[in-house]
Amino acid sequence: MCELYSKQDTLALRGKHIGPSCKVFFAADPIKIVRAQGQYMFDEKGDRYLDCINNVAHEVVKAALKQMELLNTNSRFLHDNIVEYARRLSATLPEKLSVCYFTNSGSEANDLALRLARQFRGHQDVITLDHAYHGHLSSLIEISPYKFRKGKDVKEEFVHVAPTPDTYRGKYREDHADPAMAYADEVKEIIEAAHSSGRKIAAFIAESMQSCGGQIIPPAGYFQKVAEHVHRAGGVFIADEVQVGFGRVGKYFWSFQMHGEDFVPDIVTMGKPMGNGHPMACVVTTKEIAEAFNSSGMEYFNTYGGNPVSCAVGLAVLNIIENENLQENAVQVGNYLTELLNKQKAKHPMIGDIRGIGLFIGIDLVKDREKRTPATAEAQHVIYKMKENQVLLSADGPHRNVLKIKPPMCFTEEDAEFMVDQLDRILTVLEEIMQVKTESVTSEGMPCKTKVPKEEHVEFLGGRSIESTESPSKKRNGLCSDQRALPSKRLKT
Amino acid sequence: MCELYSKQDTLALRGKHIGPSCKVFFAADPIKIVRAQGQYMFDEKGDRYLDCINNVAHEVVKAALKQMELLNTNSRFLHDNIVEYARRLSATLPEKLSVCYFTNSGSEANDLALRLARQFRGHQDVITLDHAYHGHLSSLIEISPYKFRKGKDVKEEFVHVAPTPDTYRGKYREDHADPAMAYADEVKEIIEAAHSSGRKIAAFIAESMQSCGGQIIPPAGYFQKVAEHVHRAGGVFIADEVQVGFGRVGKYFWSFQMHGEDFVPDIVTMGKPMGNGHPMACVVTTKEIAEAFNSSGMEYFNTYGGNPVSCAVGLAVLNIIENENLQENAVQVGNYLTELLNKQKAKHPMIGDIRGIGLFIGIDLVKDREKRTPATAEAQHVIYKMKENQVLLSADGPHRNVLKIKPPMCFTEEDAEFMVDQLDRILTVLEEIMQVKTESVTSEGMPCKTKVPKEEHVEFLGGRSIESTESPSKKRNGLCSDQRALPSKRLKT
Repeated sequence: MCELYSKQDTLALRGKHIGPSCKVFFAADPIKIVRAQGQYMFDEKGDRYLDCINNVAHEVVKAALKQMELLNTNSRFLHDNIVEYARRLSATLPEKLSVCYFTNSGSEANDLALRLARQFRGHQDVITLDHAYHGHLSSLIEISPYKFRKGKDVKEEFVHVAPTPDTYRGKYREDHADPAMAYADEVKEIIEAAHSSGRKIAAFIAESMQSCGGQIIPPAGYFQKVAEHVHRAGGVFIADEVQVGFGRVGKYFWSFQMHGEDFVPDIVTMGKPMGNGHPMACVVTTKEIAEAFNSSGMEYFNTYGGNPVSCAVGLAVLNIIENENLQENAVQVGNYLTELLNKQKAKHPMIGDIRGIGLFIGIDLVKDREKRTPATAEAQHVIYKMKENQVLLSADGPHRNVLKIKPPMCFTEEDAEFMVDQLDRILTVLEEIMQVKTESVTSEGMPCKTKVPKEEHVEFLGGRSIESTESPSKKRNGLCSDQRALPSKRLKT
Repeated sequence: MCELYSKQDTLALRGKHIGPSCKVFFAADPIKIVRAQGQYMFDEKGDRYLDCINNVAHEVVKAALKQMELLNTNSRFLHDNIVEYARRLSATLPEKLSVCYFTNSGSEANDLALRLARQFRGHQDVITLDHAYHGHLSSLIEISPYKFRKGKDVKEEFVHVAPTPDTYRGKYREDHADPAMAYADEVKEIIEAAHSSGRKIAAFIAESMQSCGGQIIPPAGYFQKVAEHVHRAGGVFIADEVQVGFGRVGKYFWSFQMHGEDFVPDIVTMGKPMGNGHPMACVVTTKEIAEAFNSSGMEYFNTYGGNPVSCAVGLAVLNIIENENLQENAVQVGNYLTELLNKQKAKHPMIGDIRGIGLFIGIDLVKDREKRTPATAEAQHVIYKMKENQVLLSADGPHRNVLKIKPPMCFTEEDAEFMVDQLDRILTVLEEIMQVKTESVTSEGMPCKTKVPKEEHVEFLGGRSIESTESPSKKRNGLCSDQRALPSKRLKT
């Protein structure tokens, strides 16, 4: 592998020329990845990492590249690829979802979805779920509590935040008689309150399963009930499938389909895996909504959206999902992984909850199983330790304590075993320390810091112990770089 | 060339599955393009078209494709390509513009530019030029009079529209003593009015040369004066180079540079030709602005932005511009084309103005040279006739009477001659008819329709006379499909 710059120089150049708001994974010791194959990524030294998070890459696409040599242009000319792709894509969706708009990113798709929704009946307001993330554009940060609650931005008046239908940590839990109804009623109340102040609902938007929000799977029946309330208010239901579409749930091609055939969103947005890393995304909607949008008289033109190369890439991805039985693989490996993780749950008190479907799984780490206290700092420790052991995971959710698993679709049972083995070892050691810590440090039970770090990939626990070959005792001694807080018990990693 | 669908089936599938707001070029008889090479595009029958509009494609990029086989992932991992590209890109810009944010489209870039500007000092208002187009996202339609004046949208309070510094058709013309000062003073007045109602200016945004607005080149000194006013108000200057950057003006790499070294924008956005059709765009700004953005605490993450493949493509494009002397070519061919067009202007009264620099040229068609009455319908006729003669042009500007020339950078002198020859013949015939028409039809002088069509590519004049091999007399007879309005004089095309 021929490197242009050393890792240090790469970092220095990044510091100089790339916006500081653009964060790297594992900020304390970022990884330089030079090559990838299937579910494996290789760093500049040739070290192999098992990729459990990089849900952009489904599979390597070579066949589609020939289109690039032939032609790339915009969608103002007729071309087979765009119509063929649209036809194939529609075939995966319920019949009424038949009209496509191609964009370059999930963010562009969600922005357009909002425009379609607002144009439909001239309503303006949007109901979004708490902790939701729908993209990096201005219009999407406005409807993403995950974002606007972190920054200086404030909630706009037209935005209404409904509670996340989280039955593990939310307002209504698994012990509630009908959490689906209870959460849907919250949406109903929001609509009523909006109406009583003269506002009108354009859309309810939600990921079919909340990803950044902590791998949340809504209770059965919730979406149906919400759709009913929203439709009655003249609004539309937008299902954001950017992170969770394209067969990831295994049994269905789209995550919203697991809610049953009686639930069909009015608009579906998709992106990430659609082009296997190639910037490609889409909005699919009904004829009725598309025609209302068109009647506004405003043309929609997206320079790159739906270009022949993107569509060729998209077609190749659809073929691969089909030909390589990736949905079946998601079912099989996903079930096996969930089973392994549930065994770990029985063993490790730190695992509060295992939830997911197919290759979309969350591990909710807790400091106290009964109180369900989020193990935020510990989750950071775990992902850094997993990285040292060549497994790439991330931690997310409002408390950043949920380990996110959404690997490439070619993930195998052996990969699952390897990942779970590493996790087992790391949790075993960590639980040992945690017990010691709770005896000797603050009541919050965090070994090093009591304040939750603001950014995702922080220097904490293990993150600084990379130079450990030189000072093994230091590594074995402590999770922390802060010597004052060293735990009294030695680690066995 | 192996076609999947006949042109008719392609159209039918498009009607079924692609949003009706997504318009095709030459709606009355769209072209199906299956292949392209340099400045030529080929339809399904193998017919060759000279491409004068498709400014996305600079040149075919093959070298960069090997990156796709190696690795594509997001920018949260370190990678040589992103830092190398950022370094190379910064080297083309004035020193203070050194921090890059990568996105997938010019629209995403402009949206981020607004966020950077607003975060900088917490100001909200934006000054934009009349007829400006900055992208298809919600936040950009708000600041694009080209768009919001066509649709049902209304101008938001935080948006201020300054007159386009158009010295041919604008408020202050070439006979004004100091149009630069006069137009800049308009901006100053807008700022003062905003201040007096307690508002604060975040940014002034303009394309370095207005493209959709009618190929407008601002008078020398205008940007300097505007920047002064805007800076004094605590705002930033955003130069939108999405359509006009990357060497198109020839003498300079960026269009804003033709205004002199004493003018440096605070934020520059770029896109289209950057990836030669590959979705890739960028925002470049100063350290100061980047740091203010970062201090908000909100991370900026763009899944595909700056990925290794995009950056490899971008690097290849930079190499090609350099190695194939495309800037020199833009100077030479651009000058030659302008010279040829000026000769046409001397010959054809319908040519009111020829303006441009390098390979960015506008031909302003008029019905009356003295009154400068825009020849809107005639411009549509011309582009359809040019298409019949295998040359692809578009008409734009607020009156849609300006023929836009912004061809691929490999355009040759022979291409220029061919294009001008076709234009000459078409204008000759048209002017003959026009004379007849002005004698026999309405005072508006439009042969077929008196109402200006709303959309860009309308069925008008010539557009329906494609089946002319079967009925040559029909083709020769009329510009119009509407038989009642047939001109009495025969065409000689």
